[in-house]
Amino acid sequence: MHIREQIAAHRSIRRYSPQPVPDDILRQILEAGVCASNTGNMQVYSMIVTRDSHLKQQLWEAHFKQDMVLQAPVLITFCADVRRFGKWCAARKAQPSYRNLLWFCNGSTDAVLAAQNVTLAAESFGLGICYLGTTLYNAASIIDILNIPPGVIPVTTLVMGYPDEQPPLTGRLPLEAVVHCDVYRDCSEDDLSRWYAATETSEQAEKLLQINKKETLAQVFTDCRYTHKDNVRMSEAYLQAMKQQEFM
Amino acid sequence: MHIREQIAAHRSIRRYSPQPVPDDILRQILEAGVCASNTGNMQVYSMIVTRDSHLKQQLWEAHFKQDMVLQAPVLITFCADVRRFGKWCAARKAQPSYRNLLWFCNGSTDAVLAAQNVTLAAESFGLGICYLGTTLYNAASIIDILNIPPGVIPVTTLVMGYPDEQPPLTGRLPLEAVVHCDVYRDCSEDDLSRWYAATETSEQAEKLLQINKKETLAQVFTDCRYTHKDNVRMSEAYLQAMKQQEFM
Repeated sequence: MHIREQIAAHRSIRRYSPQPVPDDILRQILEAGVCASNTGNMQVYSMIVTRDSHLKQQLWEAHFKQDMVLQAPVLITFCADVRRFGKWCAARKAQPSYRNLLWFCNGSTDAVLAAQNVTLAAESFGLGICYLGTTLYNAASIIDILNIPPGVIPVTTLVMGYPDEQPPLTGRLPLEAVVHCDVYRDCSEDDLSRWYAATETSEQAEKLLQINKKETLAQVFTDCRYTHKDNVRMSEAYLQAMKQQEFM
Repeated sequence: MHIREQIAAHRSIRRYSPQPVPDDILRQILEAGVCASNTGNMQVYSMIVTRDSHLKQQLWEAHFKQDMVLQAPVLITFCADVRRFGKWCAARKAQPSYRNLLWFCNGSTDAVLAAQNVTLAAESFGLGICYLGTTLYNAASIIDILNIPPGVIPVTTLVMGYPDEQPPLTGRLPLEAVVHCDVYRDCSEDDLSRWYAATETSEQAEKLLQINKKETLAQVFTDCRYTHKDNVRMSEAYLQAMKQQEFM
């Protein structure tokens, strides 16, 4: 399949068959990850590939008990990692200075670029993936479970395996909503109504309003899915994790 | 070309021909960007496509006067953006709460996933790209130049155009340096010596030691390229930008 067709066919997979991912295929997928651009070719990221069932059980707890974490045979935790490079510097009469916000950002970017290459390589083998945002929500637990030392912090996780579902494509906002020409152009209420019309009038939106007993779809996001209380608590928890791992 | 071949053939391009990128090709490339996974399908990111030569001149200053910023016909600044979604919530009787660290991280992840899809789609058309880390170093200037409002912050930039060079592939550490099995495994000095042997004994390393008058390659990174003073200053500046844009 052509690369752009494959990119366009992407959907997150949340149900997996128990079929394991062969080692040589996994290796090729990980090799694709390291081909991505990275900061100064310093590769300030790591990929932790977890297949052990006991560890997966613990990660399942950390990832809010999402079934796919147990089902999918492979979990990959992508970390910003300045530890390896820092240790190399220290062993070579050089003073590393990468445990700070700038390098947290550089490392996160490196990690996510690698993750997306891994995603596309996995999909090219007929595998499915899903990104776990819960990595940020529960970073401290993941750090414990995976023995992640200072100078390293998890930023995202992929579950990976052979799909046991064929979900439809998820809709996106029109391109003009996300793309700005030359400079940032703030949107008007008319723009929003036009861009969100398809989402707001969809069958799924109707269902969500009924299930959650809400007046608008936006309230499902603000009052049920990502609440103020959770956002504040998780921001504090992640800041704490950044401090603990010595990035702040 | 098969997707994995293309991923493996990736190199950053730093010299560009003046040939413009046709609109319909650029559109297909940006469409590939929005196909990437994103947080809760909320698409908390934006892509600012700058082709105006006056603006490019200003961005060239912000990006440390790297020639490729002027040469490449297209610049795309990828931003974490909770503003659009927040405005939609506010217009729909919902209270948004996304101006915090958690959603800075979610938005950054969304932005970088989109950027890597854009990269691979661009390369599939024979275009070249280079990521600009300077986006983080000089965020405040970029925010000014591109009129970026609160709730939005630049995280990375791509320059894009038809290559005017064919650089060799850049070496990477062996896969075992970056991949951990089940849990994080800290590296030993022996590991480092083995992993960095090829880099440290390369012709390029030899040249860098001579040019910079340094004893070890690591010192070129710590004393010349990314110094302690710069890292501290830029971490503070980016934190300031996060506060100004209301993410902290």
